[in-house]
Amino acid sequence: DITSYAKEVIIKEIEKHAADGLGRVDYALAAGGGRVTKHSEPFVSQKINTWLPKGKGRNSIHSNAQKMLEPSFGQPGQCFALQGSNGFIEIRLRSAIIPEAVTLEHVAKSVAYDRSSAPKDCRVYGRFEGSEFDPSSSDEENMVLLKEIRYDLESNNAQTFSIDLPISLEVVNIVRLEFSSNHGSPSHTCIYRFRVHGLEPGSITEN
Amino acid sequence: DITSYAKEVIIKEIEKHAADGLGRVDYALAAGGGRVTKHSEPFVSQKINTWLPKGKGRNSIHSNAQKMLEPSFGQPGQCFALQGSNGFIEIRLRSAIIPEAVTLEHVAKSVAYDRSSAPKDCRVYGRFEGSEFDPSSSDEENMVLLKEIRYDLESNNAQTFSIDLPISLEVVNIVRLEFSSNHGSPSHTCIYRFRVHGLEPGSITEN
Amino acid sequence: DITSYAKEVIIKEIEKHAADGLGRVDYALAAGGGRVTKHSEPFVSQKINTWLPKGKGRNSIHSNAQKMLEPSFGQPGQCFALQGSNGFIEIRLRSAIIPEAVTLEHVAKSVAYDRSSAPKDCRVYGRFEGSEFDPSSSDEENMVLLKEIRYDLESNNAQTFSIDLPISLEVVNIVRLEFSSNHGSPSHTCIYRFRVHGLEPGSITEN
Ligand SMILES: [K+]
Ligand SMILES: [K+]
Ligand SMILES: [K+]
Repeated sequence: DITSYAKEVIIKEIEKHAADGLGRVDYALAAGGGRVTKHSEPFVSQKINTWLPKGKGRNSIHSNAQKMLEPSFGQPGQCFALQGSNGFIEIRLRSAIIPEAVTLEHVAKSVAYDRSSAPKDCRVYGRFEGSEFDPSSSDEENMVLLKEIRYDLESNNAQTFSIDLPISLEVVNIVRLEFSSNHGSPSHTCIYRFRVHGLEPGSITEN
Repeated sequence: DITSYAKEVIIKEIEKHAADGLGRVDYALAAGGGRVTKHSEPFVSQKINTWLPKGKGRNSIHSNAQKMLEPSFGQPGQCFALQGSNGFIEIRLRSAIIPEAVTLEHVAKSVAYDRSSAPKDCRVYGRFEGSEFDPSSSDEENMVLLKEIRYDLESNNAQTFSIDLPISLEVVNIVRLEFSSNHGSPSHTCIYRFRVHGLEPGSITEN
Repeated sequence: DITSYAKEVIIKEIEKHAADGLGRVDYALAAGGGRVTKHSEPFVSQKINTWLPKGKGRNSIHSNAQKMLEPSFGQPGQCFALQGSNGFIEIRLRSAIIPEAVTLEHVAKSVAYDRSSAPKDCRVYGRFEGSEFDPSSSDEENMVLLKEIRYDLESNNAQTFSIDLPISLEVVNIVRLEFSSNHGSPSHTCIYRFRVHGLEPGSITEN
């Protein structure tokens, strides 16, 4: 009957919410081993004192970078802020996967102070890097375009985009998010969270 | 039909829950730049070793004070505990706003060890402070009463009270929460979370 | 009518979810004063760099041990990993209670990389320890079996087991979780969360 159907839907939706919001495996998640390995110039605000610069070397990673690989729990400010309206972030995944989708998330409209810093037009690239600490292999020329995406301010705050995997690519362990515009802020763009979904190559036999 | 209506309500309620529980902007939120600037004597428990005193100077802020400007995630203990059944906390907001409401939250009944430390009768005051670090301007005489509130143990754990703004006041960036009673504990009062809602003066034109 | 019934169920289920997932008091919760006092050999992974050994003394507690007394928020990796497929953890509760149930939780299937590290067959023991730091009283011979449990991978990720209290036992403040098998991993077993529910002896009169 209708009431047991309603209850079933409720339980299912809450389970999905409790399972990191989407109920989908995220290979970029910091707690799972994902990490930011490169990014464009971070935005340093004087207002929020956690946005401090940390290291200035060529390959230094900002202390807030990891925030984009962690849940935000409905909290404004739990993001990685980069300078200007275009930039990029490169992420090493927990393991090499066949990418199936990515999710880009901004803070919910209802609790946001300002959403002009949300990214808008983005491109997602992938590549496979054999040796973990080989700097020469980080050339952008090896990157394969996985998907062009646009973050829509009027849609859900977590937006998932499926990937039609190019024939030329098998697995990726490095994913690059490039944003070429945002929703109006001239000073900075905030990435609340970026997730990468897919299949582990051996998952069928290993399971 | 009824099932699509039910699904719509479910999605909406979960979105509200995911959006910091209320789906309402909080100008006191620590992650947004809010901070505790003054408070009465903190309660130091030997049992929970995170409640350690930190600094003893006249204007020192207890390391747990910020907890009342952060989510509690259904966890007992994620609060700022003050000595006795009366006291106060002053908060500098992220920015000056026209205050519309405040929310006082305690831990949910179902997971609480003891709710006698919940605040009961409170008064909320506001004022505007021009220069950020001007100690002379922190006089309590400039405070305007915004609302008298009573936290009801039998109602929701997050209780929102709307403010009828006094004519004499335009915007506030300092809010003071005074509690004059609690729900029975002689030793201490716990503030799990206090939020301040309102409008940024230029928000209509700036948007 | 049906729509108000649906709304009521929705609100109730979300409240339960918001109240630490179960809406039930947990006397093992770290934020409430629970702590791990003994455990078998921890599993140290090179991959996830937060799994570092900390202290190697006979009674040292791994820095990740506390994770099993904290919420996981739908995040893989937020667990205490122990070596092999059998081992134990001893927990000092916040206070002495008459135990009524325990809850064993693993990460949700939908977000897990691998669930072979989930515990399977377990035994839960309890005892009362008078003086807090008396090492001689930690003898396992004083332990009373409270419950044999089996974690079922096909059921909910948080599984609650009720306890039929043995006549010989009154209150416990130490609970021991022993696992004798897991769901397939030869290298390690992950405990995401373990909760202990019950009644405080004086709760009727004290309330
Ligand atoms: K985040
Ligand atoms: K809190
Ligand atoms: K946990």
